[in-house]
Amino acid sequence: MTTPASDPRRLRGIFTPNIVPLDEKGEIHEAEYRRYIDWLIDRGVHGLYPNGSTGEFTRFTAEERRRTVRIMVDQTRGRVPILAGAAEANVKETLSACEYYAGLGVRAVAIVSPFYYKLGPEGVYAYFREIGRNTPIDVTLYNIPLFASPIDVPTVQRLSEECERIIAIKDSSGDVPHMMRMIQAVRPNRPEFSFLTGWDAALMPMLLVGADGGTNATSGVVPEMTRSLYDLTVSGRLEVALQIQYDLVTLFDHMLFKSEFPEGFRAAVELRGFRFGQGRSPMSEKQRAELSQLREKLRSLLGERGFLDLQTSSPSSRAPDMSEIVRDVVSELKRRGLVS
Amino acid sequence: MTTPASDPRRLRGIFTPNIVPLDEKGEIHEAEYRRYIDWLIDRGVHGLYPNGSTGEFTRFTAEERRRTVRIMVDQTRGRVPILAGAAEANVKETLSACEYYAGLGVRAVAIVSPFYYKLGPEGVYAYFREIGRNTPIDVTLYNIPLFASPIDVPTVQRLSEECERIIAIKDSSGDVPHMMRMIQAVRPNRPEFSFLTGWDAALMPMLLVGADGGTNATSGVVPEMTRSLYDLTVSGRLEVALQIQYDLVTLFDHMLFKSEFPEGFRAAVELRGFRFGQGRSPMSEKQRAELSQLREKLRSLLGERGFLDLQTSSPSSRAPDMSEIVRDVVSELKRRGLVS
Amino acid sequence: MTTPASDPRRLRGIFTPNIVPLDEKGEIHEAEYRRYIDWLIDRGVHGLYPNGSTGEFTRFTAEERRRTVRIMVDQTRGRVPILAGAAEANVKETLSACEYYAGLGVRAVAIVSPFYYKLGPEGVYAYFREIGRNTPIDVTLYNIPLFASPIDVPTVQRLSEECERIIAIKDSSGDVPHMMRMIQAVRPNRPEFSFLTGWDAALMPMLLVGADGGTNATSGVVPEMTRSLYDLTVSGRLEVALQIQYDLVTLFDHMLFKSEFPEGFRAAVELRGFRFGQGRSPMSEKQRAELSQLREKLRSLLGERGFLDLQTSSPSSRAPDMSEIVRDVVSELKRRGLVS
Amino acid sequence: MTTPASDPRRLRGIFTPNIVPLDEKGEIHEAEYRRYIDWLIDRGVHGLYPNGSTGEFTRFTAEERRRTVRIMVDQTRGRVPILAGAAEANVKETLSACEYYAGLGVRAVAIVSPFYYKLGPEGVYAYFREIGRNTPIDVTLYNIPLFASPIDVPTVQRLSEECERIIAIKDSSGDVPHMMRMIQAVRPNRPEFSFLTGWDAALMPMLLVGADGGTNATSGVVPEMTRSLYDLTVSGRLEVALQIQYDLVTLFDHMLFKSEFPEGFRAAVELRGFRFGQGRSPMSEKQRAELSQLREKLRSLLGERGFLDLQTSSPSSRAPDMSEIVRDVVSELKRRGLVS
Repeated sequence: MTTPASDPRRLRGIFTPNIVPLDEKGEIHEAEYRRYIDWLIDRGVHGLYPNGSTGEFTRFTAEERRRTVRIMVDQTRGRVPILAGAAEANVKETLSACEYYAGLGVRAVAIVSPFYYKLGPEGVYAYFREIGRNTPIDVTLYNIPLFASPIDVPTVQRLSEECERIIAIKDSSGDVPHMMRMIQAVRPNRPEFSFLTGWDAALMPMLLVGADGGTNATSGVVPEMTRSLYDLTVSGRLEVALQIQYDLVTLFDHMLFKSEFPEGFRAAVELRGFRFGQGRSPMSEKQRAELSQLREKLRSLLGERGFLDLQTSSPSSRAPDMSEIVRDVVSELKRRGLVS
Repeated sequence: MTTPASDPRRLRGIFTPNIVPLDEKGEIHEAEYRRYIDWLIDRGVHGLYPNGSTGEFTRFTAEERRRTVRIMVDQTRGRVPILAGAAEANVKETLSACEYYAGLGVRAVAIVSPFYYKLGPEGVYAYFREIGRNTPIDVTLYNIPLFASPIDVPTVQRLSEECERIIAIKDSSGDVPHMMRMIQAVRPNRPEFSFLTGWDAALMPMLLVGADGGTNATSGVVPEMTRSLYDLTVSGRLEVALQIQYDLVTLFDHMLFKSEFPEGFRAAVELRGFRFGQGRSPMSEKQRAELSQLREKLRSLLGERGFLDLQTSSPSSRAPDMSEIVRDVVSELKRRGLVS
Repeated sequence: MTTPASDPRRLRGIFTPNIVPLDEKGEIHEAEYRRYIDWLIDRGVHGLYPNGSTGEFTRFTAEERRRTVRIMVDQTRGRVPILAGAAEANVKETLSACEYYAGLGVRAVAIVSPFYYKLGPEGVYAYFREIGRNTPIDVTLYNIPLFASPIDVPTVQRLSEECERIIAIKDSSGDVPHMMRMIQAVRPNRPEFSFLTGWDAALMPMLLVGADGGTNATSGVVPEMTRSLYDLTVSGRLEVALQIQYDLVTLFDHMLFKSEFPEGFRAAVELRGFRFGQGRSPMSEKQRAELSQLREKLRSLLGERGFLDLQTSSPSSRAPDMSEIVRDVVSELKRRGLVS
Repeated sequence: MTTPASDPRRLRGIFTPNIVPLDEKGEIHEAEYRRYIDWLIDRGVHGLYPNGSTGEFTRFTAEERRRTVRIMVDQTRGRVPILAGAAEANVKETLSACEYYAGLGVRAVAIVSPFYYKLGPEGVYAYFREIGRNTPIDVTLYNIPLFASPIDVPTVQRLSEECERIIAIKDSSGDVPHMMRMIQAVRPNRPEFSFLTGWDAALMPMLLVGADGGTNATSGVVPEMTRSLYDLTVSGRLEVALQIQYDLVTLFDHMLFKSEFPEGFRAAVELRGFRFGQGRSPMSEKQRAELSQLREKLRSLLGERGFLDLQTSSPSSRAPDMSEIVRDVVSELKRRGLVS
């Protein structure tokens, strides 16, 4: 049960919940978006996850959500699997989105638990059962108790047993024992079911207790690090992995807690060499000043780790050698005295 | 400050956050919706509030939300003011809805605080400021901390001072001292600003401390009672008002807490003689059974209060005499020994 | 049910949850304590409530808690009833305290719901049932969900029906509908049961829906105001009462939210002319600076309301004429433009 | 920073937060308590932790708390270190307990953050600073945000830098990234500072990110398992460790969540062959019935794992061979199909 099976159907590795770049008019900046997609794939992320929370799915219209996936499918051309966020206003609209994304050929959809209204376990179950019974494409449950109705362990178990098309859960609680409880409840009957964590600060512990990967916002900013952390952990090189995990907590905390989500991540992506434009959530003068301060701090944090010179990279740059990156990161950590 | 001014611009009285009836296909049931609007107006509600939380605005598409208002404006023909929920995916879409509703001629819009992401006070302020500066129609802030980012007192004050077009707040916290703090912070500078409560169980105390009215889900089920409670309270007949308030708590609690919101209210409206169809949130077998039990309980509660025989009423029935209703309600309460 | 009976057994009016003055060594300052008790009684509080939350009962030893009551009984000499906080480490110790306080002749004890461990309704019920069955003295339940296991409405009802010696509840939730639910659940079977609110900011609305009084920390600082608010409300002079309630919210908020509880109340009592010494909870330099700022603000707030010249008052000063106080307060409010 | 130093001053390993057995009169059952202490030491726990949350410190009197430590010191005779819970009503009483425990010769004290009143970071800091400056014995901070004022990361860092006598923190949040943040903030300046987790369900992940051990209630019931989990994890045998961690989650969840804390643990200890008597928190009939059901479930869970035949063990039984236990546990897990 606790030994991850090597079933090829499993979703595995790091899926990037990408932010969508906007132009001066606040519309989707398609050219930059395509360049960003290439950049992420080149840096080794295992998959892409449009219309996630980091991707601000609620701040786009239903048509814009479809367009972000359409462009991505076109640009990705099958190089990595796509996990498309498909939550819409109600079950009917969500199923319609599922059909649309199935038609585009994405690997699976991810559907967040009902939000705004806080549903109890029975309501959450009924919602996903209705979707699981009618979806034409594989479905990943998305549990993010901070923002949406929680999906508790018995509900995950029940859905996994009743709906074959529900094949995975993305959990953003960051609670390691909760991940263990889900794995323990689901794997005996559904050995190929996947468990992904959305909480970057716990990625390594989650993988060690049996999770299959993560949908991690940091992989949209420092894909090299998040990917390295994954590779090192699953290959058992835990000492180096732990050092990278510690360092990722530092980056994650700055990007997550020092401004309204996901502004810290947007500011950081821009430091990697992209023009992402202004987010759709208005900011007060005070917020702008704080974000400006955060940007300087992030510039320093990314610079210290050698991530700023990459900003001149173009879609044609070669994919980096992971071991090289790890070597660099670790030696930088040593230089800064964080590692002995 | 604490004495409500009689400014005619004020939103006042009971606005019904109406549920939208659906047909067998789950689409808006226009004929029944029009019949329901007439019924509510006939029973004395002061205004209507489509696209509220009770109205399940998040479960409709953007186009459906516009249609619910369009039909209502057409059916109402100016008999009562309309407060249209206008929250959309982002500021631009919300402002576009404001323009649309302004064109239809509604009295004002109501905009819920940003949800899903939980914004801090600065983010909430920046969001409403952007709307307040660009809206072509009066705006009511909508604070519902259970579901959306809270709008704290300093933010209400700041917005009321900076944005003339923000003219009211609907607060669903149910916290009486919080209402007092808002009134105390806003009225000195904006004597015509309106304060509405969305928490039926505290309607009378809220009115007594200076609130102007309520947007109360119970008024969609027992408009006679909610309206009487308002009339009796503002006219100082507190003893009778208190008895009705106590009785309304009983009804409110049953409709609110015994099933997923707003299923209890939907079931109760049907008992008044309407076909509202099945809600858009799927239900499990267990939920259906519980709702069935609740329906019987509601039938008994409404029947005891004399609200079941009204189900044959039609749009042409004459408007009821409020004092008659109050007399009836009170005598019924006496019969049941609840009042001495 | 909703009309308060005039049963003489009822606890009624304003009970002061008094702070205990400490000397330079941090020990109970008996002389000042006695002077304070007289001052409170002279200013019209209906009763005293030692060992409450404001009284920092958890920061005293079991023996000190007994001593605070012993001194109070001696000093009060029956002038007002005493409601003694009797919660100890466990049921046996609590019952032993009940016996002790019964022997001293207090009117009743108040027992807070179990804290530290958060018990569910059954555990709370079992705890109070054990006490209710064995106490030699009347018991007031004390519900303060912010600090202790909540006592829900069905539990209050159950205990009220099974234990005759449980005669009242003090509720510090500040939730008006919750108060109504308790009254509705208990009064039909126990017409003499008392309901007291511990949330000063909602005192008037609580009284209006049927509560019998309050145990209010503000009455330890401005007993004249809290008492006036009670008198005006129960005698139906609601317009003036509302103005005082609004003003009390301002004072309450400053004393409650601007420092660690109950430091703001301690600072304010000192401004009335008492030496209460330093609290037992250590403060950082930053906290001291903030308290110092708060003290100046409180000096100004109390001064504006005419409460600073009273600091020379001695136990022998005559009891104030309530109507005189109300007149003064209201005219001061008018002078400051808060009342028209 | 992330590599645990081998400083001999560090608190390390598994400390048992022991329950105290009571006799028929509800008094401390000294003989059984002594037998239990020997049993725990014989089964390999690294240390003992009286007056913890599991030990129900709040339900004993100040004198009883001293007695539980006195008996333990006498019975232990230096075989394992003792970490004595020393929180009392206020700083003065707490320091007096520190002195008393120092005189008895315990290794260190543990002091829970202030509870009942919820203090902010400055208040928590000031409290522990006062203790840290005046204690005659090493102090372990105790963070349990579920029950007491949270000790945030900056506060831990500040206290660790200012107070040499504060040498460790026990954290019961179960939040792995939080543990990493504390380690990252404190270790650079205080390499010998210890980090213990009180959340058994996350013990292995906590050790893997650098924690030094745990104060785990399960070690009072199945000390063999908790100790094995520790040994296997720190020696890098992660595959077997993970299986035991998964199994411990099952036991932990049953003992923790199926009754009021710590009744599940008390029931389980009794199944190991001790008479612990009835807890001091009264139970309703419903609670008794539920506990009875839980007891049967625990009998089955402990029996399946071979822990029931140990109940005839006496203090004189030889210390078990850890590798033997691990072998047994794992083969049992295999037999039940939980491990491949």
